Amino acid sequence: MSQSILAAFYRGDHRFSVETVDVRAPGEGEVAVRIAYCGICGTDMHVFHGNMDARVGFERVIGHEMSGVIEAVGAGVEGLTKGQKVVVRPLDHCGECPACTAGHQHICHNLKFLGLDTEGAFQEIWTVPAHTLHILPDDMRLDHAALIEPVAVACHDVRLSGLAKGEDVVVIGGGPIGVLVAAVARAAGGNVLISEVNENRLAIAAKMGFDTINPAKSDLVDSIQKRTGGKGADVVFEVSGTQPGVDAMTAVAAVRARLVMVAIHAQKPQIDLFRFFWRELELKGARVYEPADYEKAIQLVARGEIDAETIITDVSPLTDIQQAFEALDASPTALKSLIKVGA
Amino acid sequence: MSQSILAAFYRGDHRFSVETVDVRAPGEGEVAVRIAYCGICGTDMHVFHGNMDARVGFERVIGHEMSGVIEAVGAGVEGLTKGQKVVVRPLDHCGECPACTAGHQHICHNLKFLGLDTEGAFQEIWTVPAHTLHILPDDMRLDHAALIEPVAVACHDVRLSGLAKGEDVVVIGGGPIGVLVAAVARAAGGNVLISEVNENRLAIAAKMGFDTINPAKSDLVDSIQKRTGGKGADVVFEVSGTQPGVDAMTAVAAVRARLVMVAIHAQKPQIDLFRFFWRELELKGARVYEPADYEKAIQLVARGEIDAETIITDVSPLTDIQQAFEALDASPTALKSLIKVGA
Ligand SMILES: [Zn+2]
Ligand SMILES: [Zn+2]
Repeated sequence: MSQSILAAFYRGDHRFSVETVDVRAPGEGEVAVRIAYCGICGTDMHVFHGNMDARVGFERVIGHEMSGVIEAVGAGVEGLTKGQKVVVRPLDHCGECPACTAGHQHICHNLKFLGLDTEGAFQEIWTVPAHTLHILPDDMRLDHAALIEPVAVACHDVRLSGLAKGEDVVVIGGGPIGVLVAAVARAAGGNVLISEVNENRLAIAAKMGFDTINPAKSDLVDSIQKRTGGKGADVVFEVSGTQPGVDAMTAVAAVRARLVMVAIHAQKPQIDLFRFFWRELELKGARVYEPADYEKAIQLVARGEIDAETIITDVSPLTDIQQAFEALDASPTALKSLIKVGA
Repeated sequence: MSQSILAAFYRGDHRFSVETVDVRAPGEGEVAVRIAYCGICGTDMHVFHGNMDARVGFERVIGHEMSGVIEAVGAGVEGLTKGQKVVVRPLDHCGECPACTAGHQHICHNLKFLGLDTEGAFQEIWTVPAHTLHILPDDMRLDHAALIEPVAVACHDVRLSGLAKGEDVVVIGGGPIGVLVAAVARAAGGNVLISEVNENRLAIAAKMGFDTINPAKSDLVDSIQKRTGGKGADVVFEVSGTQPGVDAMTAVAAVRARLVMVAIHAQKPQIDLFRFFWRELELKGARVYEPADYEKAIQLVARGEIDAETIITDVSPLTDIQQAFEALDASPTALKSLIKVGA
């Protein structure tokens, strides 16, 4: 496998360079995956903006929302063969820290995120630890499969919420992550309402069949009260990352509601802790995913529960990655842009 | 039962008046309880300070941390007889709101707290709904039994935390509530550390056999890290009601730690939501108690798991209620003051 491939390197300050490099053959316990598609994640956009230079550096191939086909299998790897369609769960844990020994490998104290802390999937062949692979159904479309990673995030969020069929759900923030959380919550039987201030996003959410509200135009709390007969929302997903979103989260919550913190708040917002006391609310932080969330995401994509055709708004070849990032950055309507890495 | 009794009325602005009134005979479904002891709660002190005048008014007998003996039973009450030792769970719910119909009567949307929203226990005979009573063992000391209400609060907090035997616990704030939470957590098998800045309180906590730390003098996070081998605390109780307490709560927490909000934060503190994401923390609001918490509290007091002799620092007769409130307000070392209501 001494082979040349194309790989897109982040070179700092909004710049990618697509270069020819040698493939790294899979070592013991590793698998080489021929990448079909790789989506552009919000985190990749943070890298593009230069916000993660200290972590990522300027010699790195990023990308992790991928789908592909096994190209080669290293020594000691069992149950995986060339030609299988796969996705990678891009987490490598240490196995020795208190989180790992307690069984929470996805929150390992020394977690490496593949495609940020190691090389990633914006290259034609990606070599990864075998334990990160999940096998796809043979008939799954590989463009749709590139959504599995973000869908797995949503599956993790919904699983942690303990959402039961028939419960009232509010998703605060209707961007790419919000609509996936909403879709997974709907698939779990929730009565979902999406709250979003951006009219473009509201239109997409409505097209996906969701009830929506613009809290800048209508009273969100009042609407939820009416919708739920004065009870409030049983489950709230805070995806906006804003102080008004955090305020709304507690204001709409029913007694013993579960609030899931999906957004990453770099600042420390103020929280209405009196409301936590008064209604015995529960707030859960959610980080990435566990293997079960990947399996659930694969099922949901396979069953067509995720409206991939609406969510995927752009597909560009690897050689156009620079333009694809620039276009996504500038677009008010784009949801998910994929890079078509394979030929 | 046309009988005269003494009752202490809150008359506004740090003033009680002890007056002679007629007993209210128990109506259908009610029980009259001859009060033995009634503790002074932090909430009663808020009333004394005039902070709850709008809710309580100036014609009210307050008090709810009581013990007593059944004096008379109204029509339709079964299973209760004169002479039984009892405590009252001072909550009356509506039975019809979304919280009640979901089985969470203690968080009823229209909850009445006896002794604040209705008459209370700083009187010789208190007439209450029969459903609020819990029967005590015959041999329980009634002064110790006056601790059951605050112990039930602590039992509720610890139950909601899901504390398992051997887990590492930090109680932030070592006042009257903090030491009870710590005692209940210790009885549940937790390795408890109390963090408190007041040296008087630290001395009492140490006397009760707890490990303690003064975070103004030692680095709390560093100490917890060392104490837990880098893991952090599995369960944290925030009892301080302060911004530094809220900051410490997230800083000391292990992966998937459960944080219980025991303090009532009237302000909205800032919270490190990034840490919630990073370690998948869980925050639970806790309000009063459920019947199971009362039964647990009765068990713990009966077994001597609560160091009542250390916790009860003062006992005064009902006629001295004014001085008792003033003394508690002024004392740096008092933990729990009881009013001896019965003869
Ligand atoms: Zn680890
Ligand atoms: Zn109710």
